[in-house]
Amino acid sequence: MSELYAARRTRLRGRVAGAGSAGALISRPANVRYLTGCAPPGAALLLGPAEDLLLCGSPLSGDPSEGRPAEDVRVAVLPTRGGDPVVAGADLAAKAGAELLAVEEHHLTVTRHRALSQVAPRLQLTDLACAVEAQRLVKDDDEIACLRIAAEIADQALGELLESILVGRTERHLALELERRLVDHGADGPAFPTSVATGPNAGRPGHLPTDRRVEEGDFLSVGLGANYRGYRCEIGRTFVIGTTPSDWQIELYDLVFAAQRAGREALAPGVECREVDRVARHVLDSAGYGERLGPWTGHGVGLEIDEDPQLSPAAMGKLDACVPVTVEPGVHIPGRGGVRIDDTLVVRPEADGGPELLTITTKELLAL
Amino acid sequence: MSELYAARRTRLRGRVAGAGSAGALISRPANVRYLTGCAPPGAALLLGPAEDLLLCGSPLSGDPSEGRPAEDVRVAVLPTRGGDPVVAGADLAAKAGAELLAVEEHHLTVTRHRALSQVAPRLQLTDLACAVEAQRLVKDDDEIACLRIAAEIADQALGELLESILVGRTERHLALELERRLVDHGADGPAFPTSVATGPNAGRPGHLPTDRRVEEGDFLSVGLGANYRGYRCEIGRTFVIGTTPSDWQIELYDLVFAAQRAGREALAPGVECREVDRVARHVLDSAGYGERLGPWTGHGVGLEIDEDPQLSPAAMGKLDACVPVTVEPGVHIPGRGGVRIDDTLVVRPEADGGPELLTITTKELLAL
Repeated sequence: MSELYAARRTRLRGRVAGAGSAGALISRPANVRYLTGCAPPGAALLLGPAEDLLLCGSPLSGDPSEGRPAEDVRVAVLPTRGGDPVVAGADLAAKAGAELLAVEEHHLTVTRHRALSQVAPRLQLTDLACAVEAQRLVKDDDEIACLRIAAEIADQALGELLESILVGRTERHLALELERRLVDHGADGPAFPTSVATGPNAGRPGHLPTDRRVEEGDFLSVGLGANYRGYRCEIGRTFVIGTTPSDWQIELYDLVFAAQRAGREALAPGVECREVDRVARHVLDSAGYGERLGPWTGHGVGLEIDEDPQLSPAAMGKLDACVPVTVEPGVHIPGRGGVRIDDTLVVRPEADGGPELLTITTKELLAL
Repeated sequence: MSELYAARRTRLRGRVAGAGSAGALISRPANVRYLTGCAPPGAALLLGPAEDLLLCGSPLSGDPSEGRPAEDVRVAVLPTRGGDPVVAGADLAAKAGAELLAVEEHHLTVTRHRALSQVAPRLQLTDLACAVEAQRLVKDDDEIACLRIAAEIADQALGELLESILVGRTERHLALELERRLVDHGADGPAFPTSVATGPNAGRPGHLPTDRRVEEGDFLSVGLGANYRGYRCEIGRTFVIGTTPSDWQIELYDLVFAAQRAGREALAPGVECREVDRVARHVLDSAGYGERLGPWTGHGVGLEIDEDPQLSPAAMGKLDACVPVTVEPGVHIPGRGGVRIDDTLVVRPEADGGPELLTITTKELLAL
């Protein structure tokens, strides 16, 4: 595993040197973890100019959720009250004779950036921009293996919930039970706050659980994901509570299902991101729900639950093979409820069988 | 309640005007919530120059965890794909003729700050610095009432756990059970990730739960808190598993207890923050544990779990009445475990009975 992280740093170093900087200071936690294997709170990675150094504000905790540094990563723990690892990194770079240092301006606050300039006034700070995020876009086999396990865990947790009695239980309890089951099956934790939405709440994107209880005739929509070794997946399903769904429920479900399938089927290397969004959105738009749709119908996943690419009308760029994305259109009708269907898939060429579905829980409309 | 938020904004407006700005743009979520009653993800508050406006990237969700805007707060939801509420706020301020706008440079990233300058090139951006955080330091009666309820909820959750069988259960399960109980008793959620640490993990600050199971003879240290209407408290206790604590456990417990009591008893209006830290630290230092101590022994709580003041050797400033703080010294001995005792208290003058202890679970060394 150590070589993997070293190779990632080498690739980044090439990019940084190409832009004329002797070194880079990485502060965004997911980027630090991608390059070193771990991300203690507040840590920063100084990439060159002399050698790579992971600067930490406190000793490594050993918590699995924090990851573990690759064997070849040198870790420096600042002395107690030694200040901000990012500032210490700039100071070290200046002392090592660097003149230009690339920093993550999209992560550093104005105040922190100013502190870097003050500690190392002769060091010129440039913007690394989203170079590490760009490198993270296409996943390697190890990363996809983690996502596959994360998806299996989420499928298991959801499957077990469906076997239990739901009527009368609150959204909050169902969400906590799902999170407990994720951990039971080996997750480091939930990938994001679990969403359980019943009745009029169903289908609302990112709905946080309330004390509303599940009732007969409700739509129930659930969104959850596991964090496995830092990698986060997402699954969303909508069910009907009771024996028979009503006509409007069946119609709405079929419509969202058709939109989600259209999005899934559009996934292929070389396809424009906005094209995937367009085909999913078009199905809902034609049925008159265009105004109710959110700004995107899917997004990348990995070390963060919401990363590039975005599947939205304004998205630039094309899909690549080995890019994991969600496809998650939904419709929410205020006062009535709605439907949301969400899968995590890996983009694959048709020769390899097309998109690989990681979240395999059925998408039939189940009446529970 | 509406007047309360209006009064907070009026006070801030006075401060902003005193510094020469016509308006301010508040983006840090806890600050937005403090001034408006709610903080939807990514929202920003434009304070003046014309009128106050809460800018949101998407419709309010109604989720209790997000809060509810005070009745007199005008809410503007940006159209789908309308961009960043902070950027929209700067644009509006410029169009309303503002020349100077104060922004939170400790919250805005360099990249976002640049986007503000680009959308409103003639608007001069100044630093609001931590003006809102400073205003949040001393709590009013409503805020303390929320903290009191949050502490009651945490006490209840912890009390119930102590009545259950602990041996053989994993840190993760105990943490999840505590979080479920917090919600059962009315919390909007945990105030921070619940910490359950057994055996050699016990006493580690901020330890995240692992799969280690509780064993006879273990120290068990637990840190939890409830989030009630946005207000967050903290309680930490250490127990011994089994019938009789061993001598080293009793000695270490008594020592940390003495340090924590010294810190609690030092809390009074007008006392230097570092003096509270010093008295608690001194007890542990004299016993030879000085090197093992963290950078602080307590901190303020409120809308964030870790806010000013900090109780640390380098802390500047004095305590005021109605400032809630934690007092939480601890010792961790690698390979053996340790003790952590943590209370949330409100600083009160002696005439009012001295510090008000919010977290009332016993601090005797219980053998469970």
